[in-house]
Amino acid sequence: MTSKKNLQIGIIGSNSSVCSKELYTFAFNLGKALADEGYILLNGGMQGVMEAVSKGAQQSDNKNSRVIGILPFDHRETCNDYLDIVIPTGVGFARNAILVLSSDILIALGGGAGTLNEISYAWQFNKKVFCLTQTEGWSAKIADTNIDHRKSDLLIGFKDISEVIQNIRNHE
Amino acid sequence: MTSKKNLQIGIIGSNSSVCSKELYTFAFNLGKALADEGYILLNGGMQGVMEAVSKGAQQSDNKNSRVIGILPFDHRETCNDYLDIVIPTGVGFARNAILVLSSDILIALGGGAGTLNEISYAWQFNKKVFCLTQTEGWSAKIADTNIDHRKSDLLIGFKDISEVIQNIRNHE
Amino acid sequence: MTSKKNLQIGIIGSNSSVCSKELYTFAFNLGKALADEGYILLNGGMQGVMEAVSKGAQQSDNKNSRVIGILPFDHRETCNDYLDIVIPTGVGFARNAILVLSSDILIALGGGAGTLNEISYAWQFNKKVFCLTQTEGWSAKIADTNIDHRKSDLLIGFKDISEVIQNIRNHE
Amino acid sequence: MTSKKNLQIGIIGSNSSVCSKELYTFAFNLGKALADEGYILLNGGMQGVMEAVSKGAQQSDNKNSRVIGILPFDHRETCNDYLDIVIPTGVGFARNAILVLSSDILIALGGGAGTLNEISYAWQFNKKVFCLTQTEGWSAKIADTNIDHRKSDLLIGFKDISEVIQNIRNHE
Repeated sequence: MTSKKNLQIGIIGSNSSVCSKELYTFAFNLGKALADEGYILLNGGMQGVMEAVSKGAQQSDNKNSRVIGILPFDHRETCNDYLDIVIPTGVGFARNAILVLSSDILIALGGGAGTLNEISYAWQFNKKVFCLTQTEGWSAKIADTNIDHRKSDLLIGFKDISEVIQNIRNHE
Repeated sequence: MTSKKNLQIGIIGSNSSVCSKELYTFAFNLGKALADEGYILLNGGMQGVMEAVSKGAQQSDNKNSRVIGILPFDHRETCNDYLDIVIPTGVGFARNAILVLSSDILIALGGGAGTLNEISYAWQFNKKVFCLTQTEGWSAKIADTNIDHRKSDLLIGFKDISEVIQNIRNHE
Repeated sequence: MTSKKNLQIGIIGSNSSVCSKELYTFAFNLGKALADEGYILLNGGMQGVMEAVSKGAQQSDNKNSRVIGILPFDHRETCNDYLDIVIPTGVGFARNAILVLSSDILIALGGGAGTLNEISYAWQFNKKVFCLTQTEGWSAKIADTNIDHRKSDLLIGFKDISEVIQNIRNHE
Repeated sequence: MTSKKNLQIGIIGSNSSVCSKELYTFAFNLGKALADEGYILLNGGMQGVMEAVSKGAQQSDNKNSRVIGILPFDHRETCNDYLDIVIPTGVGFARNAILVLSSDILIALGGGAGTLNEISYAWQFNKKVFCLTQTEGWSAKIADTNIDHRKSDLLIGFKDISEVIQNIRNHE
């Protein structure tokens, strides 16, 4: 077993109904790249970006990485098929707070109201969110802005995978 | 006792650090006006808009209204002094989801990241939010917009108290 | 409106499937007696003891009392019909912790695993539980015992309504 | 990465203040034995039994096992030092429900009110709990009993590590 705790990275973004094919592919490639680094990946365990990043991570040869789904449900029947560990919280969308608290840093890819909810939690909990700018959805709209006057510089725009990987390496 | 369940209205908005004197006065007057109508008022139980609306409601002569604070803490020591009923949830800011689910409709007054978090929950839970436009903060920024493409027309801008009272009467 | 916060009393106990007719009648009479005292009553909002105590409270002439249901669900469709205020938490049975934290003191009437769960939370949160001894179920089994060695004397047996009302008056 | 989801086993029991040296050693050995089997181990992330089982698991050579702490806190500063993955839920002891829901089966070692709380959740959620009988605390008291009349045979007594390992193999 690994004894050193790995960095835990939360990936948030569009669910299936608002996830374009391009965004799905981007999320898949990001998942593989993050798993190659050996990080622990957390997501909401459902479809769209969450499924893509999980599926991509499963393609990595790095044995230290794991994908964890933090589900709103009290069972695991409706999560995506690419999770190593499943946390069926049973607390509904209050699980958004748990997902954000469990992430050392977050990456946002597109996203609707659920993603905005998680980004605003990240702001409250003082967590950095790397926000994809080359997409539709909230990650692009909110990148490099401040949600309120109490903090600043937590929502950092990025354009491609190598850039966000480098940012995370610098964060450690 | 009253046997008919009264409409439950959640009021969300700026905490003390971002609540101007003008917004505090507005929230106080709104609290009194809503209590005069006999509604059950819910809020986050803390300071700023939450305190003002609670304090205003205590000035009403309507015996049916009540003010309920849904607290993040597991105790009641740090809530405001104008709550009739206190729900110390102990779940931290996951209580935002509970506050929104407990509200038949919501009213947003200004607000920072916490208010944006609650507005995005309202969108997820399909609840109407009446959003004050004559203010700084998220209620003005997000009024009359759509958070994502899956729903529409849940965030309704308003300018003064008589307008929102009339809107709520129409809602019942 | 009442400005003084009333004592908040949580009533826990058998759900419909394990609630005898005798226990239902006892809970109904207890609900009326507690409402006559003007207390705020909280319960899990469902059937059995929860419904009976709510229904009884609605028979009281005291205008200060209120019955609040803290629901596991994210909606109010399946709660009992005798609640003044409904808190649909959406967090499933994690709502047991919220119900206990929101109660200044608790009263247990019979009960199965759910009631035992709430009694053990009360112990963790250092809350007194008045436990009915003249019944089947956990309130009788656990009355006047200590759950572990870290605390003592929180689970106080009682036999009839006048006794528990007197105990609560002494508590204030 | 492993693509097949491993069995998730929750270990619950005495916190530091009620964990004897003998029980700590037993939990350590159990943690190593379960990790040798390649299981995912979940616990509350704190001291006593939780620390011992985590520490033991770190001694295993099996690369597939992981130890996950489901914390009540909103930060990771006060968890034990032997966790691979940390979920700081921020929901207080409502995390007990999440820990139980996340476990396919549970093992209880001694324990006070917190352990009783988790065992009663397991009963509500229909999860098997293997209960150590050779100890003080709730695992021994409640082994091979039924919490209420709605279910049966979920709380299975065991005496030593080889017995519980065999039971879990049979469960799969």
